[in-house]
Amino acid sequence: MTYTVQDIAAALGCEAAGATDISIEAVREPAEAGPEHLALAMKPEFAETLSQGRARAALLWTGADWQALGLEAAIFAQRPRFALAGLSQMMDPGARYPQGIHPTAVIDPSAEIGEGVTIGPLAMVGPNAVIGARSVIGPQCYIGAEVRLGGDALLHAQVTVAHGVTIGAHFMAQSGARIGSDGFSFVTPEKSGAERARETLGDQGEAKAQSWARIHSLGGVTIGNDVEVGSNTCIDRGTVRDTVIGDGTKIDNLVQIGHNCIIGKDCLICGHVGFAGSVKTGNNCVFGGQTGIADNLFIGDNVISGGGTTILSNVPSGRVMLGYPATKMDVQTESYKAIRRLPRLMRDVAALKKAVSKQGESD
Amino acid sequence: MTYTVQDIAAALGCEAAGATDISIEAVREPAEAGPEHLALAMKPEFAETLSQGRARAALLWTGADWQALGLEAAIFAQRPRFALAGLSQMMDPGARYPQGIHPTAVIDPSAEIGEGVTIGPLAMVGPNAVIGARSVIGPQCYIGAEVRLGGDALLHAQVTVAHGVTIGAHFMAQSGARIGSDGFSFVTPEKSGAERARETLGDQGEAKAQSWARIHSLGGVTIGNDVEVGSNTCIDRGTVRDTVIGDGTKIDNLVQIGHNCIIGKDCLICGHVGFAGSVKTGNNCVFGGQTGIADNLFIGDNVISGGGTTILSNVPSGRVMLGYPATKMDVQTESYKAIRRLPRLMRDVAALKKAVSKQGESD
Amino acid sequence: MTYTVQDIAAALGCEAAGATDISIEAVREPAEAGPEHLALAMKPEFAETLSQGRARAALLWTGADWQALGLEAAIFAQRPRFALAGLSQMMDPGARYPQGIHPTAVIDPSAEIGEGVTIGPLAMVGPNAVIGARSVIGPQCYIGAEVRLGGDALLHAQVTVAHGVTIGAHFMAQSGARIGSDGFSFVTPEKSGAERARETLGDQGEAKAQSWARIHSLGGVTIGNDVEVGSNTCIDRGTVRDTVIGDGTKIDNLVQIGHNCIIGKDCLICGHVGFAGSVKTGNNCVFGGQTGIADNLFIGDNVISGGGTTILSNVPSGRVMLGYPATKMDVQTESYKAIRRLPRLMRDVAALKKAVSKQGESD
Repeated sequence: MTYTVQDIAAALGCEAAGATDISIEAVREPAEAGPEHLALAMKPEFAETLSQGRARAALLWTGADWQALGLEAAIFAQRPRFALAGLSQMMDPGARYPQGIHPTAVIDPSAEIGEGVTIGPLAMVGPNAVIGARSVIGPQCYIGAEVRLGGDALLHAQVTVAHGVTIGAHFMAQSGARIGSDGFSFVTPEKSGAERARETLGDQGEAKAQSWARIHSLGGVTIGNDVEVGSNTCIDRGTVRDTVIGDGTKIDNLVQIGHNCIIGKDCLICGHVGFAGSVKTGNNCVFGGQTGIADNLFIGDNVISGGGTTILSNVPSGRVMLGYPATKMDVQTESYKAIRRLPRLMRDVAALKKAVSKQGESD
Repeated sequence: MTYTVQDIAAALGCEAAGATDISIEAVREPAEAGPEHLALAMKPEFAETLSQGRARAALLWTGADWQALGLEAAIFAQRPRFALAGLSQMMDPGARYPQGIHPTAVIDPSAEIGEGVTIGPLAMVGPNAVIGARSVIGPQCYIGAEVRLGGDALLHAQVTVAHGVTIGAHFMAQSGARIGSDGFSFVTPEKSGAERARETLGDQGEAKAQSWARIHSLGGVTIGNDVEVGSNTCIDRGTVRDTVIGDGTKIDNLVQIGHNCIIGKDCLICGHVGFAGSVKTGNNCVFGGQTGIADNLFIGDNVISGGGTTILSNVPSGRVMLGYPATKMDVQTESYKAIRRLPRLMRDVAALKKAVSKQGESD
Repeated sequence: MTYTVQDIAAALGCEAAGATDISIEAVREPAEAGPEHLALAMKPEFAETLSQGRARAALLWTGADWQALGLEAAIFAQRPRFALAGLSQMMDPGARYPQGIHPTAVIDPSAEIGEGVTIGPLAMVGPNAVIGARSVIGPQCYIGAEVRLGGDALLHAQVTVAHGVTIGAHFMAQSGARIGSDGFSFVTPEKSGAERARETLGDQGEAKAQSWARIHSLGGVTIGNDVEVGSNTCIDRGTVRDTVIGDGTKIDNLVQIGHNCIIGKDCLICGHVGFAGSVKTGNNCVFGGQTGIADNLFIGDNVISGGGTTILSNVPSGRVMLGYPATKMDVQTESYKAIRRLPRLMRDVAALKKAVSKQGESD
């Protein structure tokens, strides 16, 4: 599909200038752009590489001198990365899964399949599942019994949604996402060493060999609207009630969300983040890659954690956290600096001891 | 399936009181419970919310005053979380996979399928595989050649068990578990920079560009009885002998167990834990989420690690570990406190230097 | 398949001695070896266990006294682990997937399937995909539209390769590998708290609730020759251009490689490593397990990181890194030691304060 520069600018709500009837087939980085491409030169440093390519048109920042950059046409964005969201959506050709219900899909006759739904080759849909209109179930996906999936979903190949999971509209899941696996919940007949070590902060008492009894997960998972789940990410079902993911929350690859968690709205959860069980977060949080959050904690609204942060206690709203164990970012930064200066401090103290001892003698 | 309060109490070996003929369809948290539910009010703080629901019966702690809580019947548990294990098992409706051998499953004629086995839609079972009686192979699972799987297993959708893996009875695996992938083992023709850095603790000498030769994994994986493996967890096969997982060990989601590891019995391994190759652990260990264990280490019995711990050396039995690099938890806690006080310590030393220098002058 | 000791020695380019016509069926650790096995006794400490087994022949280090070890034949290797690479390849029976194109595979008629290709049961190959000669697509794999896969590939069961991904020759992927999922890239209409916290190193200013707009991934993934990808590892597609993995790079299980990354040649990336978006690395790097690398960083050639390292800034070539945040390994080691001595240092300073204050009084 091709668009004119004018079409694109109108769709993005941006100003355009020059030969806005130029046809655009795709977007490219400036150096790789040909005459049929819109170059993405959203900052002056990217614009410098325009001359290495052959773009006639580019997406630029507001106020850029497009003619000096040798362009024939330009689109100007106030917040170019935000404009890229709309632009990339227009230009995405998608995965091109075969449309409609594929004859090799195994669909229980009691499942309710909405209008315009695609169910890919070798996928399975279980009894009493409800699939909302226009949703795409990719090849080799598994949709369990009693699942309720809203409209306009896109599940890429090999996603599993276990029995009894409820998902809102506009859901997107990447390959290998696991929604609704059993929670990891075990208990010993008598108090375990781990329970004692928690109570005493480190002393497990006399260790006794016990086996673990399984606590089954009777709850499901409830996911709001406009949620995205990355590749090979796991969201476990709850023990008694559902694990909950709020509207608009986006989850990256390889994330673990334990049983009973309640994740707020519009959160961003990056790769390898792990929430132990029963964590509750507020809205609009951002968790950097490899952040870990211990079980039963409460995280407020608008909390941000840097990459690799290990959160071991509750975090009030608005905090920016870093480190192991996590503290406010500025406290952590100060600690790092102090640690770097420790060897010098030790030499200073040694020298002081010598000086004081000498002064003591001379007194 | 419904039970009376008396049925449940008898199954759990607990005392019951009141109208024990009340019918129970499911369990709920107190505030969500209706008259057909058993409310889980296993601590006084949970019991406070009973009045927000409409439960007639509840699971309570021993000695609770059930009548004062407005209930018509109650079950009392000495260790309520342990009672929940049995109760949740009774109440679990399961995933409702289609029973029996599904016609779309691809099963090698040489495979031995035990009595009462279910093999789900679009699953595959390879040559000479042996599936124990009553085991359930979920939809779209893959069971490789020569796999031996014990009885009463439950493999959820899209689990893979590679060729030559041996698994005991009562195995459970969540979706996306990968048992028996190749180990990650590579070698350069000449000593690599990483090998030199290990020997010298940081100096890799003169770096030389070399390619990596693959060491194939000729061993398999041997898993004991009563083992559980979480979603998207990986257990790699051994190089020459098998990787081993002991009886009763439970493994959460997204865990990595490298080639040649020997994991003991009744261990609990939480989400995102990573064992590098050839680690050996004792029995009854608990590894908190995101713990990492470097290769070739020995971990004793009853070792516990807190979330995010990075273990870089052997750990004797009974230790509770924390931190990066891991130390005994109390040492780590003392270090954290000391680091927080470092900025003040630095100011103190600066003041001391000034005072001593002044005293030196005044001497 | 069996080999004589002489066959094996010749294939490995090693010297052999003794009864080199002994037949070898498989390799074993010394204590488990029978007369039909080649025992792997590549170091003196392994050779000590030869007497516990019944091996007639062994792979030994150069100069070993094979007769004193009670053997009838021996192969000598200068660098035994490197010899093991070749030996393990000879002895690997492989996964024994059914050969040829399985009738249950769903293959788009426009796909180009090379000579001698295997496509396993229940696999899918999308439109215009090109599969190189002799490649093996395991059972239940998914190959998207327009994928170009080189010759001699081996994809184990349940690998997904999304549309438009390009892969060189001799590719190997373990079960559950996800190549070409969408990048994790989102933007708010106005500057977010996370953007502000980055600029200010910790102050996100006044938090404002905003929803996230998706930036679609229009690029693909380009993977060189001789690359291996572990189980459940994710390599995301690029935003505008492709994410790139260099020739000869080996990637372990559960690794996350974010959108737009450019990974060099012959790198080794261990389990649970996470690269945030747009990281560029040099060649011959080794990243230890659970290493995290923040977005947009540049890592030079021959960089090594220890397990659990969190890299938050650029790393020059040749560095050996450790810690959180990562520093040169020796700096980190010095810091750890200093932290352990902190409590004593604090006592020293307290004593000094007392002494100085007393001296001050006595002046």
